[in-house]
Amino acid sequence: MTDTAEEMYTLVERMYPLCRSITGDGVRATLDIVGEYIPLQVHEVPTGTQVLDWTVPQEWNIRDAYIADTAGHRVVNFAASSLHVLGYSVPVSATMPLAELRAHLHTLPDHPSWVPYRTSYYKPEWGFCLAQETLDALPDGEYEVRVDSTLADGHLTYAEHVVPGQVPDEVIVSCHVCHPSLANDNLAGIAVATFLARALAQETPYYTYRFIYAPGTIGAITWLARNAERVERVKHGLVLACAGDPGQVTYKQSRRGDAEIDRVMRHVLTASERPHHVNEFTPYGYDERQYCSPGFNLGVGSLTRTPYAGYPEYHTSADNLDFVSPEAMADTLAVCREAFAVLDRNRRYLNLSPYGEPQLGRRGLYDALGGRSDTKQAQMAMLWVLNLSDGEHSLLDVAERSGLPFSAVAAAADALCGAELIKA
Amino acid sequence: MTDTAEEMYTLVERMYPLCRSITGDGVRATLDIVGEYIPLQVHEVPTGTQVLDWTVPQEWNIRDAYIADTAGHRVVNFAASSLHVLGYSVPVSATMPLAELRAHLHTLPDHPSWVPYRTSYYKPEWGFCLAQETLDALPDGEYEVRVDSTLADGHLTYAEHVVPGQVPDEVIVSCHVCHPSLANDNLAGIAVATFLARALAQETPYYTYRFIYAPGTIGAITWLARNAERVERVKHGLVLACAGDPGQVTYKQSRRGDAEIDRVMRHVLTASERPHHVNEFTPYGYDERQYCSPGFNLGVGSLTRTPYAGYPEYHTSADNLDFVSPEAMADTLAVCREAFAVLDRNRRYLNLSPYGEPQLGRRGLYDALGGRSDTKQAQMAMLWVLNLSDGEHSLLDVAERSGLPFSAVAAAADALCGAELIKA
Amino acid sequence: MTDTAEEMYTLVERMYPLCRSITGDGVRATLDIVGEYIPLQVHEVPTGTQVLDWTVPQEWNIRDAYIADTAGHRVVNFAASSLHVLGYSVPVSATMPLAELRAHLHTLPDHPSWVPYRTSYYKPEWGFCLAQETLDALPDGEYEVRVDSTLADGHLTYAEHVVPGQVPDEVIVSCHVCHPSLANDNLAGIAVATFLARALAQETPYYTYRFIYAPGTIGAITWLARNAERVERVKHGLVLACAGDPGQVTYKQSRRGDAEIDRVMRHVLTASERPHHVNEFTPYGYDERQYCSPGFNLGVGSLTRTPYAGYPEYHTSADNLDFVSPEAMADTLAVCREAFAVLDRNRRYLNLSPYGEPQLGRRGLYDALGGRSDTKQAQMAMLWVLNLSDGEHSLLDVAERSGLPFSAVAAAADALCGAELIKA
Repeated sequence: MTDTAEEMYTLVERMYPLCRSITGDGVRATLDIVGEYIPLQVHEVPTGTQVLDWTVPQEWNIRDAYIADTAGHRVVNFAASSLHVLGYSVPVSATMPLAELRAHLHTLPDHPSWVPYRTSYYKPEWGFCLAQETLDALPDGEYEVRVDSTLADGHLTYAEHVVPGQVPDEVIVSCHVCHPSLANDNLAGIAVATFLARALAQETPYYTYRFIYAPGTIGAITWLARNAERVERVKHGLVLACAGDPGQVTYKQSRRGDAEIDRVMRHVLTASERPHHVNEFTPYGYDERQYCSPGFNLGVGSLTRTPYAGYPEYHTSADNLDFVSPEAMADTLAVCREAFAVLDRNRRYLNLSPYGEPQLGRRGLYDALGGRSDTKQAQMAMLWVLNLSDGEHSLLDVAERSGLPFSAVAAAADALCGAELIKA
Repeated sequence: MTDTAEEMYTLVERMYPLCRSITGDGVRATLDIVGEYIPLQVHEVPTGTQVLDWTVPQEWNIRDAYIADTAGHRVVNFAASSLHVLGYSVPVSATMPLAELRAHLHTLPDHPSWVPYRTSYYKPEWGFCLAQETLDALPDGEYEVRVDSTLADGHLTYAEHVVPGQVPDEVIVSCHVCHPSLANDNLAGIAVATFLARALAQETPYYTYRFIYAPGTIGAITWLARNAERVERVKHGLVLACAGDPGQVTYKQSRRGDAEIDRVMRHVLTASERPHHVNEFTPYGYDERQYCSPGFNLGVGSLTRTPYAGYPEYHTSADNLDFVSPEAMADTLAVCREAFAVLDRNRRYLNLSPYGEPQLGRRGLYDALGGRSDTKQAQMAMLWVLNLSDGEHSLLDVAERSGLPFSAVAAAADALCGAELIKA
Repeated sequence: MTDTAEEMYTLVERMYPLCRSITGDGVRATLDIVGEYIPLQVHEVPTGTQVLDWTVPQEWNIRDAYIADTAGHRVVNFAASSLHVLGYSVPVSATMPLAELRAHLHTLPDHPSWVPYRTSYYKPEWGFCLAQETLDALPDGEYEVRVDSTLADGHLTYAEHVVPGQVPDEVIVSCHVCHPSLANDNLAGIAVATFLARALAQETPYYTYRFIYAPGTIGAITWLARNAERVERVKHGLVLACAGDPGQVTYKQSRRGDAEIDRVMRHVLTASERPHHVNEFTPYGYDERQYCSPGFNLGVGSLTRTPYAGYPEYHTSADNLDFVSPEAMADTLAVCREAFAVLDRNRRYLNLSPYGEPQLGRRGLYDALGGRSDTKQAQMAMLWVLNLSDGEHSLLDVAERSGLPFSAVAAAADALCGAELIKA
């Protein structure tokens, strides 16, 4: 196992206990931790701000929440897990019989030992989430219920990290930071994004890479609303989520289906010989929903391992630290790096000597001894790049049509550029 | 069995004995019967009228025809079946030896008990059709032959029935009415068309539906020649034939292959999980030949059960009342109704809030409780309609891409229209 | 076996002993022989002429070459096979120990009894090619080596033969004439091209057919450089090579992949029910590399039996007169003739009576007796040609969409032209 794999897992462990939601101090604390790894620009957007068709809601913070029996024993306790309280619960302090309380309790009858994850962001409501087993064991009678939360004007918090490139065109990597103690969804995604940013910073990439850490839906919508001009510069993107579970890597294509990121991901996943899935776009899932809404229609796909809602542990207490592994996160990170290596290097060239083949031999690019049939990959790559560099074909096109590794094709393009036989 | 199924079969039974041809009183009598079910506008086009590349022929009527032996016994008798006489036979009254008569006799050696259906519309000829068995049993000798027909200036007769819609754009349903006592080809088609017209009249459809009852080839050509301006309004159409045999439903695509009617029929047949066939266009068969000639190139497909010439009973006396069933006709009618329900409701919409998802929750269109993974079909349908309503995609496109039932997609479009989130 | 098959084999036999290279008297002698079969226009291009990115090299001629042991015995002898000397060897006359000589010897260790074919056109070098067995048997010691060659300013030689057509648009057939004693690569190609030219001259084809006999790479480049204006007239083409081995016919598509020659070859090979291969374009192989360079991008494919470098005997002494057969060359010739018959006849027509079907019956083009279901191929072909003659579809399109033989479709087009129902 690599150091990076372990470091990503440690980052997940550190973020796991915090109670995150679409606003509030849990998000801020999470971004503080990420900020220890990479510098973040944190944005605070006031409640009531109009963002596209939405309005930034009141900020929610919670200090404590419990259900206690008449003996004062806490039978459900927020301190034990942030999942126990319905996200965005309004404050409550009351005593009521179990029969009345039931309307506010959420369980998973099919998984009686698991606690579900539930929210009520836009309808004032209070509630608790608990194991069916716990509920079944509660005797009838009176219970004290208390949610010590505040829902008040404040801010929505999100952050950005930019790896500067050679051109202002951007690649965005977006991950949601609003889920409470769920390890795969999306602490693993946050961890992979963070170490991906670190790796990209080691070199000067071609594109500018922008990492967006924002609450789901309202956060992405807020970012889009505040970056209307920047959106024009976003050429490619990935939504990163569920990045640490044991399942196969899954790429969900952008709404376009043939965006460059779609072609790159398909190519890289196939070339890597990893077991994987490539799924069609659907307007459900994570924030690709917003980036791929028809007005924006960005070339943004989504990379997960098991996809959205595709595993029983999804949105339950079973999506815990045991459900994710350093190895799985390291593998997801590797896929991202392989894909961005291709994306970043993919370009169209123009053959400057397009009539007949240029004489490679006198430029030292071709074997002097003729007649042999075992032409080398490097020579084939040069012939392919020359033949397809008509301004219509990218290096990825050349790699796919020739069946040669992208890296060999890119090296041939470098050699031919050096000989001034092609130009970008 | 439904009442409609029985009524269609009764209609077939009533039309069966009549001797129809491309002109004459048999067609008129047939249209009189259909006119008892739905109002018909009957057109009479004079002999000699130029219709596109053709000329309306003389009108043919027949009163009697037979071959009698020397004892006066009628060994072949038109009164027993209208198939016995060659369609458009010129009059004859003669006595001749069997050897000479043979040149005018048509049989089916491979099906010795069946009588073939033959015509000679455009070359003056007389003849009889009979079972091979009957012919084999005839002793040599003299026979009296008589065809009491008239071939004279008159009219070609066809009829129309219109179900008015909300827009002047038209859907045509065309069936040929020229075949004599053949039940599947095309009395079943006439019956299904008639009850389809009745069903459409129950509601006010979007399109205007025009039903054309006309003799094959020359009738469709006559209609096209006399409706040059109307043809521009014909957006879709179906040729209905062979609608009652026991075979699977078969849709033959229009010449375009990707006309909206083609996509609708493929979608409906697949969605219905009926066993069925979808065939490529060929310039042979029924009147789709004319509607799909390159100058018109209409989006007109053809719906049959077993297709043109695809069954041994085709164009023989075995295409009789036993060969068609109420159930088969009811099924063909159901396919038509399902297809027209989709065609009639299929439209493109424009998302009026295309940047990010609109907030469905505050409009009462979305579950307030978040976190659950079992999103309902209705919500998915709304997300899909919003995502694809960019003016490029129809509701059928949405249904096909999403895999959702067309009806769910259409309902979502209604809800989103009501919320003024999309417009047609 | 046909006379033509035998004649082609005889032609191969006659050319086999000559020592060809990219320049020199061996090419001239070869063209002299071909010139006995069809008239050739021979071109001589001076050394130093700039041709596209290349320069015509010095002319190479060789009179003798050998390695002799101290007893004067020639252990390797050019007189025995032209393969024994490295193509374009500079002169040498020396005595040296075997150890020193080895650097100039080329063998095939995997095929110890075969002599390889090697060249060094653009780097001054001398060398010998011999069987590994021969080398292994040589005792250490001194050897006399002698290459009696000249490398001097002179000319590059190539030839053309034109079969005039009805239009100036051209089809080129190109074959390389630079290989020494290799039978399949490319004496068989030369022979098939020559007899193809003869066959085409028997009729007046539609296109003008130009046969190019030129050394590989530099020859094709020279032709292209000297025919800049003619290239615009080249509509289709074939590179002919490896035309006589026992393998299946292989068509390598042009760079375009959907050029008319590609469609014709695929159609003809499929229709002929020959076992065959159709390969994608690659920028390696024979002179399709030049014709399909991106600046020209001609619709030129390559026809071989076993393709370039696809057999062990390739570029070795085992590609000898036993490796090719009259039958295989006759089959390759037949494929060419079938393909050019389709290519030459393929045209788009316009239906002059596109609204509805024209009445074929009154023009004597249709059966008078109606009702029969066994419509003949000729009638179907006419209906298909009428239906698709909208200016968009070629006769090949009609044949492919209808599934009818191209010849039947072409005959239908002739009949309809005669009736003035369509025009080219």
